[in-house]
Amino acid sequence: MSLNKENKISDYSEKEIIELISSSNNNNDYVVKGIGDDCAVCKFSNDDYDHVYTSDATIEGIHFKNSDDCELIGSKAVGRVLSDLASMGSKPVSILVNIVISENYSVNNLQRIYSGIYSLLNSFNVSLIGGDLTSGKNLSLHIFGIGILPKGSAIYRCGAKIGDMIWSTGKLGKSFLGKHLSFTPRVYEGIWLRESGFVNSMIDISDGLATDLRYLIEPSNLGAFLYKDNLNIMSSVNNVLYDGEDYELLFTTSRKYSLDLQNKWNKSFDTKLWNIGEITDKSNCLYLKSSDQLTLITKDGYQHF
Amino acid sequence: MSLNKENKISDYSEKEIIELISSSNNNNDYVVKGIGDDCAVCKFSNDDYDHVYTSDATIEGIHFKNSDDCELIGSKAVGRVLSDLASMGSKPVSILVNIVISENYSVNNLQRIYSGIYSLLNSFNVSLIGGDLTSGKNLSLHIFGIGILPKGSAIYRCGAKIGDMIWSTGKLGKSFLGKHLSFTPRVYEGIWLRESGFVNSMIDISDGLATDLRYLIEPSNLGAFLYKDNLNIMSSVNNVLYDGEDYELLFTTSRKYSLDLQNKWNKSFDTKLWNIGEITDKSNCLYLKSSDQLTLITKDGYQHF
Repeated sequence: MSLNKENKISDYSEKEIIELISSSNNNNDYVVKGIGDDCAVCKFSNDDYDHVYTSDATIEGIHFKNSDDCELIGSKAVGRVLSDLASMGSKPVSILVNIVISENYSVNNLQRIYSGIYSLLNSFNVSLIGGDLTSGKNLSLHIFGIGILPKGSAIYRCGAKIGDMIWSTGKLGKSFLGKHLSFTPRVYEGIWLRESGFVNSMIDISDGLATDLRYLIEPSNLGAFLYKDNLNIMSSVNNVLYDGEDYELLFTTSRKYSLDLQNKWNKSFDTKLWNIGEITDKSNCLYLKSSDQLTLITKDGYQHF
Repeated sequence: MSLNKENKISDYSEKEIIELISSSNNNNDYVVKGIGDDCAVCKFSNDDYDHVYTSDATIEGIHFKNSDDCELIGSKAVGRVLSDLASMGSKPVSILVNIVISENYSVNNLQRIYSGIYSLLNSFNVSLIGGDLTSGKNLSLHIFGIGILPKGSAIYRCGAKIGDMIWSTGKLGKSFLGKHLSFTPRVYEGIWLRESGFVNSMIDISDGLATDLRYLIEPSNLGAFLYKDNLNIMSSVNNVLYDGEDYELLFTTSRKYSLDLQNKWNKSFDTKLWNIGEITDKSNCLYLKSSDQLTLITKDGYQHF
């Protein structure tokens, strides 16, 4: 990408900006995986666990409206982080919360935000261990999450193989109907999937299936078919592809594990596992596949920039 | 504190707000130290290290001006976090950076912010491993820091004892002259002090000596004398007490280690160690002591709320 001194951030894609600001970074010996996945992974000598870290911003006017329920704002902010930790297959341990909030904000509403935060944390035995409180006009929550998993067992975005089946842990395309504010992060499912040994690659769907699936195929120069009929059962194809903020886990497994995966999954969870497509060798090409036609998917999902 | 539904955040002190929002928290078995110190500390079975976490916000209009040098903005944001990690005696390992930035912001200036971030990180072999980029009017950096130290060796704010000498790793009161934007976090000094075995309690000075010293004495219902003559050599007493953002380490040791501490310190560091006072049994009372009088210090340093 070319860089001109006069250029503004809006002249670049989010991906280009991230490349720009991470180009001078040096990973030390602790870093197993740095910038570029849902979470970073670090290792420490003599520790049985790798440590998994992520941070997400949840901001008024972008991720929620001022009129949204305060408890849901709090639980969404935490849920986004727990969903990232789940996408590596990690067990969440603790979080820190930086909150920027107006001095005129109601203390009662602040308490309700934290009630939403604690409600979700307590359901997964995760602790709030620190943070920062600053005055500012726009209500913003910056949440840092810490998780652990057995050494070397993290599941990454890269790793998908030609012929892999593509799965989602739940129905997609319901985000704008309210799911983006009220969802259960797939914490237990993420751990279960890692332990199953079936999974080649995994991500959580926060930017929309069309965008997040590209994060799985592009590192390996692979492509994918998505089964149009299956997407249509979930919701409209358009909603499934582009809504974003589904917070389901999207993962791939070898075809040979398909039956075994579904049988074991159904014994462990009440929710249905959705097979929504397959990985192909058509580099970076995403197709919608029905019985009689293939349609190239070109439009990306929502981007913050 | 009484809570009225109509109350605003500005009706409460920062301490009261933190009490309010942390009252429903449950610490799980990983948490050694949760909310209430410069950093949180977690332990993991079979790990030789405890893990230390902190997060700080650095926000335009509060911590820096729009016209400040971009590299200094970046290094200040990181320096604040490394200073917190140092105050526990921990070795910094990695950070995550959430940045909120206007779409009209100059990409060149964004690069300069990150240049300041990397410059400080590289000097301490710390890696940037993740973060989040969001659009917003007010330039804000929320930085999450991760450090480690040998199991059980963290130094806390509590732990000061009657008769302890009070030390600072450098001159105080130069913050408004520019030091708040341009300082070296006392990373090596913090590790050295932990390893020395001399230190009973430690904090970094970010809110001002008058405020931060209270965090050392109040947990143990102790008091302190500050030596007026020594403060006057550093800067004016007023600046030393209330400027804030010195980012020096403030710590206490038993009087019997005083000579040994100074001798060993002088062999390791070029900077001078300042003995600025002593811990007393006068519960929560802070005095300025000179040869002929004692003055009670009542006014607190700067508070964000």
